[in-house]
Amino acid sequence: MSAENDSVDEGKMYISYNNVHQLCQEAAEKIKPMKPDLIVAIGGGGFIPARILRSFLKEPGQPNLRVMAIILSLYEDINSVSTDAEKTGTEVVRVQWIDYLKSKIDLVGKNVLIVDEVDDTRTTLHYAISELQKDADAQAAAQGKPPGSTNFLVFVLHDKVKPKKAALPAKIMDTGKYLAARTVPDVWIAYPWESTDIVPHTEMAVKQGNDAFL
Amino acid sequence: MSAENDSVDEGKMYISYNNVHQLCQEAAEKIKPMKPDLIVAIGGGGFIPARILRSFLKEPGQPNLRVMAIILSLYEDINSVSTDAEKTGTEVVRVQWIDYLKSKIDLVGKNVLIVDEVDDTRTTLHYAISELQKDADAQAAAQGKPPGSTNFLVFVLHDKVKPKKAALPAKIMDTGKYLAARTVPDVWIAYPWESTDIVPHTEMAVKQGNDAFL
Repeated sequence: MSAENDSVDEGKMYISYNNVHQLCQEAAEKIKPMKPDLIVAIGGGGFIPARILRSFLKEPGQPNLRVMAIILSLYEDINSVSTDAEKTGTEVVRVQWIDYLKSKIDLVGKNVLIVDEVDDTRTTLHYAISELQKDADAQAAAQGKPPGSTNFLVFVLHDKVKPKKAALPAKIMDTGKYLAARTVPDVWIAYPWESTDIVPHTEMAVKQGNDAFL
Repeated sequence: MSAENDSVDEGKMYISYNNVHQLCQEAAEKIKPMKPDLIVAIGGGGFIPARILRSFLKEPGQPNLRVMAIILSLYEDINSVSTDAEKTGTEVVRVQWIDYLKSKIDLVGKNVLIVDEVDDTRTTLHYAISELQKDADAQAAAQGKPPGSTNFLVFVLHDKVKPKKAALPAKIMDTGKYLAARTVPDVWIAYPWESTDIVPHTEMAVKQGNDAFL
């Protein structure tokens, strides 16, 4: 058990599972009109909201949307003098990625919903979209089509108000394609799946108004 | 919203999120002595229990265990006359798999924990382990080592008592390496992430004793 989870801490924002579930439900109503074709979960934080969203995005008579998991490792070039992540020599390793051949996933002209739990420094989201964009453009080129036909949508449970270390494309941020269920101050968010004692955790979430059930 | 989730149904077994969390917590105490090196989540059902387990399996001073997601598609040969899944011409497609090169994952001599939500017909677990075993043996061969040094552990939230269509190796089943948090009758299990109305869902889970919180 990690020490930070052994007891509740008034300075943290406690989130219950049912709250996460309802944030996904609420967001799904906004996401549905954008007709996502595929969900990409950024692991490990995106796994749970992505799986919940899949239920709410299910259309009657249609199969479930597919959820593909991706995991990125980012290694910053420690010799770089720039503090701007976009200009540093960040090495991006696709620890887990989409196997386009085996999964028969074609990103060209599709609406791809990228899901993570929290937008903290924005770095992971930035690189995830940047890498997926490269793949989409390569797929388009292989089909003799112009690049840029893939629409990326972003969903996070919480966006922290703080200086971000990386940016997302204007065609996402300025067109309603970035959705945060809640915009929150830069505090420690205690997600239920990180809790080692879910009873006091849930009680704190209820006390803080982050549980709609009780 | 799928019709089956629109209202509660006394014939189903309702499971709350906090119940899932506590089942993972309980299981983690049994899993820890087996020292897993890697968690493999079978998507999409395994994503949530795998993410929760990762928190409980965290050892102080050690990094989190890695969670890799796999997704299998199974296509049964409809011309086959056998009803034994192991003997039918089932085509197994690794829709999502481990990229051993990029992730630098070496299965040789490791303890690999495979996680899914429910063991229904056992077919998915059977093929997941069978495919991972092939990879482990290939990795061992490439290192000039004998096959069979990888230990597979299985965790599911619920094992349904029913005739299974596929088997798991005796070295898993007969040595305590198969763990089901609960063994249950062959009923419809309503997991919280499939619920379209989490409040009555949770109330039913509480009523049925499948929530330890309330």
